[in-house]
Amino acid sequence: MSVTAAKGFTAAGIAAGIKQNGNPDLALVVNQGPRRAAAGVFTSNRVKAAPVLWSEQVLKTGELTAVVLNSGGANACTGPQGFQDTHATAEKVAEVLNIGAGEVAVASTGLIGVLLPMDKLLPGVEKAAVELSEHGGEKAAIAIKTTDTVHKTAVVTKNGWTVGGMAKGAGMLAPGLATMLVVLTTDADVDTPELDKALRAATRVTFDRVDSDGCMSTNDTVLLLASGASGVSPEYDDFADAVRQVCDNLGRQLIGDAEGASKDIRVEVVNAETEEDAVEVGRSIARNNLLKCAIHGEDPNWGRVLSAIGTTSAAFEPDRLNVAINDVWVCKNGSVGEDRDLVDMRYREVKITADLAAGNASAVIWTNDLTADYVHENSAYSS
Amino acid sequence: MSVTAAKGFTAAGIAAGIKQNGNPDLALVVNQGPRRAAAGVFTSNRVKAAPVLWSEQVLKTGELTAVVLNSGGANACTGPQGFQDTHATAEKVAEVLNIGAGEVAVASTGLIGVLLPMDKLLPGVEKAAVELSEHGGEKAAIAIKTTDTVHKTAVVTKNGWTVGGMAKGAGMLAPGLATMLVVLTTDADVDTPELDKALRAATRVTFDRVDSDGCMSTNDTVLLLASGASGVSPEYDDFADAVRQVCDNLGRQLIGDAEGASKDIRVEVVNAETEEDAVEVGRSIARNNLLKCAIHGEDPNWGRVLSAIGTTSAAFEPDRLNVAINDVWVCKNGSVGEDRDLVDMRYREVKITADLAAGNASAVIWTNDLTADYVHENSAYSS
Repeated sequence: MSVTAAKGFTAAGIAAGIKQNGNPDLALVVNQGPRRAAAGVFTSNRVKAAPVLWSEQVLKTGELTAVVLNSGGANACTGPQGFQDTHATAEKVAEVLNIGAGEVAVASTGLIGVLLPMDKLLPGVEKAAVELSEHGGEKAAIAIKTTDTVHKTAVVTKNGWTVGGMAKGAGMLAPGLATMLVVLTTDADVDTPELDKALRAATRVTFDRVDSDGCMSTNDTVLLLASGASGVSPEYDDFADAVRQVCDNLGRQLIGDAEGASKDIRVEVVNAETEEDAVEVGRSIARNNLLKCAIHGEDPNWGRVLSAIGTTSAAFEPDRLNVAINDVWVCKNGSVGEDRDLVDMRYREVKITADLAAGNASAVIWTNDLTADYVHENSAYSS
Repeated sequence: MSVTAAKGFTAAGIAAGIKQNGNPDLALVVNQGPRRAAAGVFTSNRVKAAPVLWSEQVLKTGELTAVVLNSGGANACTGPQGFQDTHATAEKVAEVLNIGAGEVAVASTGLIGVLLPMDKLLPGVEKAAVELSEHGGEKAAIAIKTTDTVHKTAVVTKNGWTVGGMAKGAGMLAPGLATMLVVLTTDADVDTPELDKALRAATRVTFDRVDSDGCMSTNDTVLLLASGASGVSPEYDDFADAVRQVCDNLGRQLIGDAEGASKDIRVEVVNAETEEDAVEVGRSIARNNLLKCAIHGEDPNWGRVLSAIGTTSAAFEPDRLNVAINDVWVCKNGSVGEDRDLVDMRYREVKITADLAAGNASAVIWTNDLTADYVHENSAYSS
């Protein structure tokens, strides 16, 4: 499972002491080759953590041999010292693996504005290197958790080759990537341009359409590494489809574990003039706090859906809008539709369908409800 | 006080039975002249309630004699019948006051997607007309409350003339106007173009910069009526300043009564390249749910402020950003600044200052924290 499901990869997850509670907090993933192709996408937040700045830089070669990830500290907004710490982490990984620091991506997650305890992190890298194993994927996935209640992994196996991966993220989920660290691996024999194309195509319709609380992180990182160890070169479409499936599965797990959530909400916008319109409307609905509270209260409050649609610049006529909640069309032609008492909202998954009656494009955005538990968790996170 | 502080106005507030709990729910404000100049600004939500569509239309003459307002139902997303109901309400007011329906603005607030009980509303108009009084401003302010815990009025008196007003709104507060109904009156002798200019200038820097929960309403309406009864024609700048003061005062009261809030948050963005940048950054900070939870927990989490700034398109360099919370500069040059333990957050008002180090423009946005009470109130509002 996880990042070691594909052949040619080893991984480890250990407790370095970065987290004060002693939980696992350092993961290492190593590509044993023969190929070392890699691609990545990063947060679009303009305030980027030191490890994001580093990893963007080293990825320009199109190759990576190792990824080191830590939880317990984001190393964001930490100034020149923060960047030096990321650099020193990559150098330590390079030293213990006998490779160059430019082959090492770094990812961090946790509190912003706090320097990492390098006296614990660097010995942790040595410890992780010793524990590298073809069975280490699960432990690596556990070591990158922050407020996640479960670790997240996914695997798709095709004819002789595999795409697998791990993800963390449970809040601050938003477009332009959720706050997430994701490492995907494959033993398919795929070159860097195809890897990059498949990864961008997949994240655009998966992680970029997961919007838990509208808050965009400083640290989001999604990496895809290819070892070529299967010796199989799949058709691009097959490969891209497998990458998308793994991303979709992991993105769905992120929403399912969102901080304090009691409902997973699938917002589908249909009959939009363009896909961009569909995404804009879906995101506006997904970010409406009043609606998210209503869903928490199992109240099929379609007025709040219309209100959210009305704030967008998408093509639509107000008196042609239709809205269904769990397949009951409670709003027809911008006004009262079927009886709202027909809507059954007892289950965790809630489906909102917004019909713009303006074209043939559509998009799905995943979000979750807004709960008192979310408030409690995030008002006490650092204090 | 309220809409009858200025000479030349009468008002009433009564219980028509629109609200099932029997609370006051219908207000009437009448301009006795001699002048009947009027200006208005309305929601920028593209899904507009019937009364908004009606009032925008009648205001094109630049004159109004009466405003009828109801709580207990927004008459939004109610289709052709909803518009007919608004029209019938204006006709009833015109009948009882012996004026034309085109002189009557209508405003409604409450649940979306429900038709108004016209069998109660129309007799209510007759009852309100009987109770019109020069002392009726307070009762009118009470009758427009929805989830407001207090009614809101403000008055500024200058040399021989007065601007006064009332407001309702306690949630769904957002830019392009908070969900609010506001009626302002003045006995200054001011013509429609000056009224309009003063009202737009005032709302741009007051109600448009109140952002409680990022949710924009279908019903927002701000009206300003001038009777000219004082016989005084003030200088434009003096008049505009008085209108701005009343709007500022009412806007501040809206935030102070925001649903479930325990903190009023003043977000000031300074040293921006343009005022537009300052407003964009201020709004991004004001809408960040994670930060709003942190403030609720009295946690000076400046990392979440930087994270919010980073999502904007404003001019700034990440390593030149400074952030103060209650005047303690906890973030300097994009990194750790003064000791966060110096920040005292025990009081209701919290001040966040974001220094973009990019120019000389500034703006203030008011918001509030995100609390479990907000979730409770809004998950149970209609069910």
